[in-house]
Amino acid sequence: MKATTIYAPRDVRLEDQPDPAIQKSTDAIVKVVAACVCGSDLWYYRGDSPVEVPMRIGHEFVGIVQEVGSDVRSLRRGDFVIAPFMYSDNTCPHCRVGIQSACSAGGFWGGPDRDGLMADGGQGEYVRVPLADGTLVATRETPDDAMVPSLLALSDVMGTGWHAAMAAGIQEGDTVAVVGDGAVGLSGILAAAQMGAERVVAMSRHQARQQIARAFGATDVIEARGETGEAAVLELTSGVGADAVLECVGTGQSMATAIAVARPGATVGYVGVPHGVVLPVRKMFSRNIGVAGGVAPVRQYLPALRDQVLSGAINPGLVFDLDLPLEQVAEGYAAMDERRAIKTMLRP
Amino acid sequence: MKATTIYAPRDVRLEDQPDPAIQKSTDAIVKVVAACVCGSDLWYYRGDSPVEVPMRIGHEFVGIVQEVGSDVRSLRRGDFVIAPFMYSDNTCPHCRVGIQSACSAGGFWGGPDRDGLMADGGQGEYVRVPLADGTLVATRETPDDAMVPSLLALSDVMGTGWHAAMAAGIQEGDTVAVVGDGAVGLSGILAAAQMGAERVVAMSRHQARQQIARAFGATDVIEARGETGEAAVLELTSGVGADAVLECVGTGQSMATAIAVARPGATVGYVGVPHGVVLPVRKMFSRNIGVAGGVAPVRQYLPALRDQVLSGAINPGLVFDLDLPLEQVAEGYAAMDERRAIKTMLRP
Repeated sequence: MKATTIYAPRDVRLEDQPDPAIQKSTDAIVKVVAACVCGSDLWYYRGDSPVEVPMRIGHEFVGIVQEVGSDVRSLRRGDFVIAPFMYSDNTCPHCRVGIQSACSAGGFWGGPDRDGLMADGGQGEYVRVPLADGTLVATRETPDDAMVPSLLALSDVMGTGWHAAMAAGIQEGDTVAVVGDGAVGLSGILAAAQMGAERVVAMSRHQARQQIARAFGATDVIEARGETGEAAVLELTSGVGADAVLECVGTGQSMATAIAVARPGATVGYVGVPHGVVLPVRKMFSRNIGVAGGVAPVRQYLPALRDQVLSGAINPGLVFDLDLPLEQVAEGYAAMDERRAIKTMLRP
Repeated sequence: MKATTIYAPRDVRLEDQPDPAIQKSTDAIVKVVAACVCGSDLWYYRGDSPVEVPMRIGHEFVGIVQEVGSDVRSLRRGDFVIAPFMYSDNTCPHCRVGIQSACSAGGFWGGPDRDGLMADGGQGEYVRVPLADGTLVATRETPDDAMVPSLLALSDVMGTGWHAAMAAGIQEGDTVAVVGDGAVGLSGILAAAQMGAERVVAMSRHQARQQIARAFGATDVIEARGETGEAAVLELTSGVGADAVLECVGTGQSMATAIAVARPGATVGYVGVPHGVVLPVRKMFSRNIGVAGGVAPVRQYLPALRDQVLSGAINPGLVFDLDLPLEQVAEGYAAMDERRAIKTMLRP
């Protein structure tokens, strides 16, 4: 099969790899229908995170089950499935409280499991899925092709935006500020609107992203950043601040802005992988600003979000503005790196 | 009247001061029945926080209303009242969502209000209470003297421990770890037990405090600190960690322990004023550990806690193990500084 390996910053290649086979009785083999490139893949692509050895890459995919191991109970050949960006057994104590991203048997696509067995990356033709029962979520029927982008978005960005909104404790009627207009930030806007926020303030300076933000439910858009942007949010809220804030970037500036625009007692739900973030604990303490979030337990939210997509209640696939054949994976990365695309879908 | 001023580290004096009088129509004058010394007063007493000019000190008191300004509606002469450790109008947007500690018209005892008018400290015979309607909470009748310690504890430590427990999001049946065995940590144990925690793990190495911890509902006591103490909590929870953690100290080590013993997805409710705390954001992110809390909005919790005290459901006054006449205020500080007392009550 063909699958993607990252060799070094800006060196992403689609290459021949052995077809995956069942290795453990809890595995499934999935034929990928669509995969995509994540903003967090760019940390490697840009050299912000090290690529010490060539790595199979990609952690978002939907596909069709080809084969299941002898202990797989909930899936069968032919099922259309959504994979979260981590695999998990969904039975350990952490999974049982909904933090599947801390599963004691779980792991990352493209990385080793507890026995050192490497998992496939998602940007390929086939994937061996460890702990298939605990990881994959199937649809009842094979969905229309038009549904695929929105189901694929559930693999990571929509579940991650949802996690930010859950962590921030959004209540009906809230004013919510969203820092970050990447695919996760946009998904956070959609989550906030779904949760009943009355006002959703998107911080975005890009026309195309502002349009999606509005389509997802943003009621206000603030283009300014830094202190000017913070002042604008405070002005919008009569000096009070937002009832809940989603931090969907992970830089020092984005977190500083998120905390500055939160009203006393509010929580910043953060899902941007922290790079250079220093939490200002004295300021947080004096204003009762909480921070909560982290690596999103997408698996927790998948069944409900799948149903929302299938019913037409949400259309998170709007974040895909570039649709390429898998052969053009390198271009898919370059377009996101150069901000020509918000998010690239790849079709094997 | 007599009232307490701190002049410098370890220099606390009871001196003659002018009797307070109504300055604004929203003021009340309260004759203090009992006051106390706070762990946070010790930051000044020990020189950890600067004493730049002599300051009136004390922010916890209960007493009898002597006189009210012309705009005070809810109180009358003779009412027994509990004062929270900050005054607040209880009507501004922050107060209305229950964060009275961020009141836009509020302030600290012994400090200036928005017009520069100085408030009295609580460790004196009389106090002019700004914004009396929004600040004070009265009991229906004058309580028995035996109730006074528990009502006084609501001024700060019990409300602060309660805030830690609320911020940590304790659910019925939870296992809760409490870092800190001062009066606030002990109050946090009581709050956790009241909220239905099944297991409350007190981290304490002092016999007298362990006894109060048990009386307040601690089911387990861990004497070890640092990594050994953390390992002990993890062992108690089968390696999973606590469902909720209260951080009631405010040092770098206490926060590190609180985060280390939290299970993935848990929140550390923190109320210890941070001194040297660095929040480990990458570790928090990878394990989905939230932190929430800050300067406790005691006023929010006062009516309910008052009723719990008066019904006998809780007895937070157990934290007072030294009862002195106000004249001996200096000894009251020294006893707490030298850890001969957990908390000192002062009677004018």
